[in-house]
Amino acid sequence: MNTYIEQNKDRFLNELLELLRIPSVSADSKFKGDMIAAAEYVKKSILQAGADKAEIYETAGHPVVYGEKIIDPSLPTVLIYGHYDVQPADPYDLWDSPPFEPVIKNERIYARGACDDKGQFYMHIKALETMIATGSLTCNVKMMIEGEEEIGSDNLETFVKAHRDLLKCDTILISDTSIIANDVPSIETGLRGLTYVEVEVVGANRDLHSGVYGGGVANPINILCEMIASMKDENGHITIPGFYDKVVDLSEEERNALNSAPFDLDEYKRDLGIDDITGEKGYTTIERTSVRPTLDVNGIWGGYIGEGAKTVLPSKANAKISMRLVPHQTDKEICELFSRHFESIAPASVKVKVTPHHGGLPYVTPTDSVEYRAAELAMEESFGKKPIPTRGGGSIPIVALFEQELGRKSILMGFGLDIDSLHSPNESYGLFNYYKGIETIPLFFKHYAELKK
Amino acid sequence: MNTYIEQNKDRFLNELLELLRIPSVSADSKFKGDMIAAAEYVKKSILQAGADKAEIYETAGHPVVYGEKIIDPSLPTVLIYGHYDVQPADPYDLWDSPPFEPVIKNERIYARGACDDKGQFYMHIKALETMIATGSLTCNVKMMIEGEEEIGSDNLETFVKAHRDLLKCDTILISDTSIIANDVPSIETGLRGLTYVEVEVVGANRDLHSGVYGGGVANPINILCEMIASMKDENGHITIPGFYDKVVDLSEEERNALNSAPFDLDEYKRDLGIDDITGEKGYTTIERTSVRPTLDVNGIWGGYIGEGAKTVLPSKANAKISMRLVPHQTDKEICELFSRHFESIAPASVKVKVTPHHGGLPYVTPTDSVEYRAAELAMEESFGKKPIPTRGGGSIPIVALFEQELGRKSILMGFGLDIDSLHSPNESYGLFNYYKGIETIPLFFKHYAELKK
Repeated sequence: MNTYIEQNKDRFLNELLELLRIPSVSADSKFKGDMIAAAEYVKKSILQAGADKAEIYETAGHPVVYGEKIIDPSLPTVLIYGHYDVQPADPYDLWDSPPFEPVIKNERIYARGACDDKGQFYMHIKALETMIATGSLTCNVKMMIEGEEEIGSDNLETFVKAHRDLLKCDTILISDTSIIANDVPSIETGLRGLTYVEVEVVGANRDLHSGVYGGGVANPINILCEMIASMKDENGHITIPGFYDKVVDLSEEERNALNSAPFDLDEYKRDLGIDDITGEKGYTTIERTSVRPTLDVNGIWGGYIGEGAKTVLPSKANAKISMRLVPHQTDKEICELFSRHFESIAPASVKVKVTPHHGGLPYVTPTDSVEYRAAELAMEESFGKKPIPTRGGGSIPIVALFEQELGRKSILMGFGLDIDSLHSPNESYGLFNYYKGIETIPLFFKHYAELKK
Repeated sequence: MNTYIEQNKDRFLNELLELLRIPSVSADSKFKGDMIAAAEYVKKSILQAGADKAEIYETAGHPVVYGEKIIDPSLPTVLIYGHYDVQPADPYDLWDSPPFEPVIKNERIYARGACDDKGQFYMHIKALETMIATGSLTCNVKMMIEGEEEIGSDNLETFVKAHRDLLKCDTILISDTSIIANDVPSIETGLRGLTYVEVEVVGANRDLHSGVYGGGVANPINILCEMIASMKDENGHITIPGFYDKVVDLSEEERNALNSAPFDLDEYKRDLGIDDITGEKGYTTIERTSVRPTLDVNGIWGGYIGEGAKTVLPSKANAKISMRLVPHQTDKEICELFSRHFESIAPASVKVKVTPHHGGLPYVTPTDSVEYRAAELAMEESFGKKPIPTRGGGSIPIVALFEQELGRKSILMGFGLDIDSLHSPNESYGLFNYYKGIETIPLFFKHYAELKK
């Protein structure tokens, strides 16, 4: 099997690069046409891999691509999930090379979506091709590649509910996460949830002269800053009433297991170019970024942001704010708590508005399941090392939805690295990781089929 | 004389409209050509009014236009100051008509610069024409119209220092301020100073995934918000150490005089569309906007501000912050206090930078001077009411410079109104005010010459 991968490695790479050239940004409507082109490309790739069929399903938003290869109904069925949409690429000026013109440098593929998630889900298409071509496919395979993961998978719930039979499976395999290092394989057993809102603070009905009115009329920017600042106390705890009510602290054992993962603070700081870390008091960096909830401003704007100076007292200020959630917190409830609190702390001198963007539930998977064991064996075989179970800080709203609608757990067997700069300029994905994934996935199928016997 | 104004009123208006069509925005380099066109137009207008000469003087920035009419060296000389540059017009979408395509609606001229300061300094050119045409000029007149008032008059100091003899005068007359109402004339006897800075807060060396790093790495936007919020306490007092050291509280008498000016809070709120006012505890709105210093964020930006949601933990955040100053505070000292404080409160997890933009000293003029008396008599004659001395909240850096370099006080005899929306969309200037100014200015010259006898 590895011979087949070896013989086709250049084509496997070029096919991915072609997909990376399509700017499929789901958040920005001006890329609508590219979203469709990307879906078409994914459909074509699944068919070329040898699937029985592949189709594009329209939704209220961006289309979902579904394909399958059913070799024997009596064999276990694995549903592969991935997403062909990518994060916006701006700020473009911080990219060393154009985000949608992939280049290979020091054994890495540089492009928006190289790792998240085009590079990772495409590994599954190439793994499928490999298993079919080498007659080593041991399970039935279903693939669902969506186009709205980066904007909250808003329409996927409707799709999944409407196609429960089509998506019927024994387990779900997803590659959209990272390993600790190329020589330290790991599997994510948990993900944080997400609540994302946009807020607006409005003062006077027009921009004002800061000399004539300054000091006597509310400045929406100053007030937005005060409101945001007030939402965390001096220990980095979030002050929204009820925010932590559902949060369960990990046991000493769980904390030790979590913190036993290799982590070099100095290297971490060096990589990020920071003198010091920060965060919620009483927790380690690993905990702060995986098992603790957060509140981050993702964007803020207001007043005059052009060249030079303008002495304006602006009429309004806006911010995009997201909160990462941990098990038992629900995106809907936290969104309500945030909105109620934000409105309650607004002074009478301004009017505020909170607009929810999207959310997702947190997720945890057990490490004693057949599918986890299969992933563990697969990685152990391909990496030569037993993978470490970790908790991820990101969010893949879909996994909670799968559990709820399909009654199945998802296995997060990703192959990315922290240095991949997901959502950042110069996103990249290692060639080692791309090929290692294509090599590991068939091993998952092999072990899963055996364990299910 | 008023006959002459009456006979030429349409031309007086059309000449101003032509000037308003030139987008002379000094803050934005893309309007550089328009700045020169505006200077040329001003020079031409001064010559057509009958001046002996008018010239354009280059500076390191935008040019200064100077013109003069010397009728008799033994007569007093009045220096007219004004500025042909205007504030940026954005946000353009909030204008009911294009900012540089002036329209007349309900007896008002709508355009950027209609009042600030094109409409107001152009009154002086038309007043000069009127006095010369009607043989009623009683003083020598010098005019200096600059192009950098809205960006701090950075190069005017050099110009004034280099041309002390050229600018030699007995007093300076400026129309760049407002009256309380068309039936309540007033003269500004004080102005606030200004310190304007731009700040930058930098966290990680690149934008990060808010899920992978959120909670463990500093978010520059959250931190900028916290730093800005911390610069005012719950009473609206500015917390920068030493900020108030030089501020002298007004005497009970001065406060009473100031607060005796007509002010209708309900109408004020209604005009601004706000439910409540705000500001420094223990002071009235009139005091907060004229004799008390301020700290306002004029612009803020950071992270993702495009359509939809991007879960990014941004690398940096920026803000433009200005402080209005009152007598005895100096822009340079306050700028240093701000910078030192801002750097001192920055947490170790970020790096901060403060870039001073421009500043200006506060100013106060006595009400017992010959020139104030002349302005008082002129307004009393044209409005039929004695003007009320007021303290303005805005800043005209040049007046402090004049006092320092030319040893002369300035008289701020402006004709605008609060409803003129200076620096805002839909700036306007009343036709009544434009013509009332042209009518009042010659009366100032008349009374000034008599009082100086």
